[in-house]
Amino acid sequence: MSESKLLSRIIGMIQMVDKEAMASARARQDILTKPQGSLGRLEELSIQLAGIQGKPLPQIRHKAVVTMAGDHGVTAEGVSAYPKKVTAQMVANFLRGGAGINVIARSIGARVVVVDMGVAANLDPTPELISRKVAPGTQNMCQGSAMTTEQALRAIEFGIEIVISEIGKGLDIIGTGDMGIGNTTASSAICAVMTGNAVADVTGRGTGIDKEQLKHKMNMIERALRVNEPDPAKPIDVLAKVGGFEIGGLVGVILGAAAHHIPVVIDGFISGAAALIASSLSPFFKDYLIAAHVSTEPGHGLLLKHLGLKPLLDLGMRLGEGTGAALGISLAEAAARILSEMSTFTEAGVSERST
Amino acid sequence: MSESKLLSRIIGMIQMVDKEAMASARARQDILTKPQGSLGRLEELSIQLAGIQGKPLPQIRHKAVVTMAGDHGVTAEGVSAYPKKVTAQMVANFLRGGAGINVIARSIGARVVVVDMGVAANLDPTPELISRKVAPGTQNMCQGSAMTTEQALRAIEFGIEIVISEIGKGLDIIGTGDMGIGNTTASSAICAVMTGNAVADVTGRGTGIDKEQLKHKMNMIERALRVNEPDPAKPIDVLAKVGGFEIGGLVGVILGAAAHHIPVVIDGFISGAAALIASSLSPFFKDYLIAAHVSTEPGHGLLLKHLGLKPLLDLGMRLGEGTGAALGISLAEAAARILSEMSTFTEAGVSERST
Repeated sequence: MSESKLLSRIIGMIQMVDKEAMASARARQDILTKPQGSLGRLEELSIQLAGIQGKPLPQIRHKAVVTMAGDHGVTAEGVSAYPKKVTAQMVANFLRGGAGINVIARSIGARVVVVDMGVAANLDPTPELISRKVAPGTQNMCQGSAMTTEQALRAIEFGIEIVISEIGKGLDIIGTGDMGIGNTTASSAICAVMTGNAVADVTGRGTGIDKEQLKHKMNMIERALRVNEPDPAKPIDVLAKVGGFEIGGLVGVILGAAAHHIPVVIDGFISGAAALIASSLSPFFKDYLIAAHVSTEPGHGLLLKHLGLKPLLDLGMRLGEGTGAALGISLAEAAARILSEMSTFTEAGVSERST
Repeated sequence: MSESKLLSRIIGMIQMVDKEAMASARARQDILTKPQGSLGRLEELSIQLAGIQGKPLPQIRHKAVVTMAGDHGVTAEGVSAYPKKVTAQMVANFLRGGAGINVIARSIGARVVVVDMGVAANLDPTPELISRKVAPGTQNMCQGSAMTTEQALRAIEFGIEIVISEIGKGLDIIGTGDMGIGNTTASSAICAVMTGNAVADVTGRGTGIDKEQLKHKMNMIERALRVNEPDPAKPIDVLAKVGGFEIGGLVGVILGAAAHHIPVVIDGFISGAAALIASSLSPFFKDYLIAAHVSTEPGHGLLLKHLGLKPLLDLGMRLGEGTGAALGISLAEAAARILSEMSTFTEAGVSERST
């Protein structure tokens, strides 16, 4: 597989999480003023954060959600309930602060990083918009490869560079988010290839198509897989053939964050597809991932199971943008603060169990 | 049933939630820049908040968790893993800010209101401690009624007064919390009586007893029910015979909040037992409740089903104190902000669905 130097270096940087920090965090959880284990998954999460950050007392102060946008040539086949131009319109909405991710990110105190990875429109340049347009939308994957291998690698590299730049601004945790009309179609294709599940089992209604349109969407995915024959053993090949620029960017964000010991909170189905690609590139990678929620897209639960991840939330959400990730970040912050800020039995003068 | 004047007045004040505000909130959710329904339970929650507050755009700014403490005579039977004195020690921990509820409440920007409803110790008076001690702990319910009917009513009235006082300080949402060694035993007894489930199905390991101790705990609950014969048709009778002062206080908090259009986020099993009592006192009451999470106590899920409530979170938590409620409050805040702060399709110039 052809790999870029940056990508190889980043993959080489991803180490096993810090088992000593985890042991230390676990030991501390057991002496805090509560019955052992009584904070359930928040305790597990705090221990995972310790392992990722390599600190017995992980800190979650600087929080960001990276929302990457890209267009998809496959929309020409009529796979979405919304017109393609909505991708660009929603990017403008993100920049004005009026979208779901803006509101939830404000609510939990996270910044939103908006990236044009390949929107099929000329977006007005603003200081808030990071422009890394690989191309103005992918090609129609029903007729050939969605992008070239070079474009796939460039998308990943852009993602790595963006996360490194965000680390420079202060970053303790990162959430992934996406915007791209047609991107559940690409994600279902990736999911089918990488997990081995049938297209029918990993394809859902996206933004809200009806039963007949769903059948058509499945047919288009089947056709794209026949035309391209993506090889699950070659994740970059899968990304190039049936992926998207925002998905490639998120692969880079995820790998870049893991390489720098930053916990990655993955959002919904599209972020999950990016995690599937990333997980095939690094053996140690999975321990850096936190699955924020399980969406109503049928493929999402299957891909989380394939990755061995248990979602924190199940709220029937399917918006994307990083909205689920933002809620997951707030749970991670609570988990980290419990470890740092709760008193121990000794400190508080509270008696331990008598039995 | 003998009822106090205050309690009768409060129950009379609890009206049906505002259906017009709910319709208005629902209509607005459908024109916000996202596929309809794509924020799942956050959308439902925002509509419920609109109904409770009686406003198309509900506001969640002032947030509080009321954590009520009380001791239980039944601890003489050895039903808990921790000694009784831990109740008072944990109240001191709450006041110093070192307990789980303090940390999570700080993390989500809520204040913690600590109330001594009946701790079996003389607590040092501080400005932060609200003292409404009905008595220094309940009597042993295995040998007779845990409290008198007058004490049960006084506990509820104290709870009502406390929530009214908190409303005076500014309050948009309230979470319930508890502390009391032995109070899962009382809650299991209440749950068995009020839901009709078998004691064995609603009794769990509380703070962490072993299998043999669990069997003993079940036997003690069976004995308390035989000795007292609480009548499920008389919720105050049930509270008096097998309840606790903190549970009675929470009944008052829940009813008082509902009467004043304040959403109530209930925490775990003990708060749920209080909700069971409260729900038998008012027909309109249930729509004011938000179930934050389902704990690992086996009775909690059954009790929520009985109340017709679907928990927002399932994180394997069983600490109490209001820790689950605090996490639920942060989801409610996100839900309310979505309704107020997201742009509509028209405002944002985003195209609506084409199909």
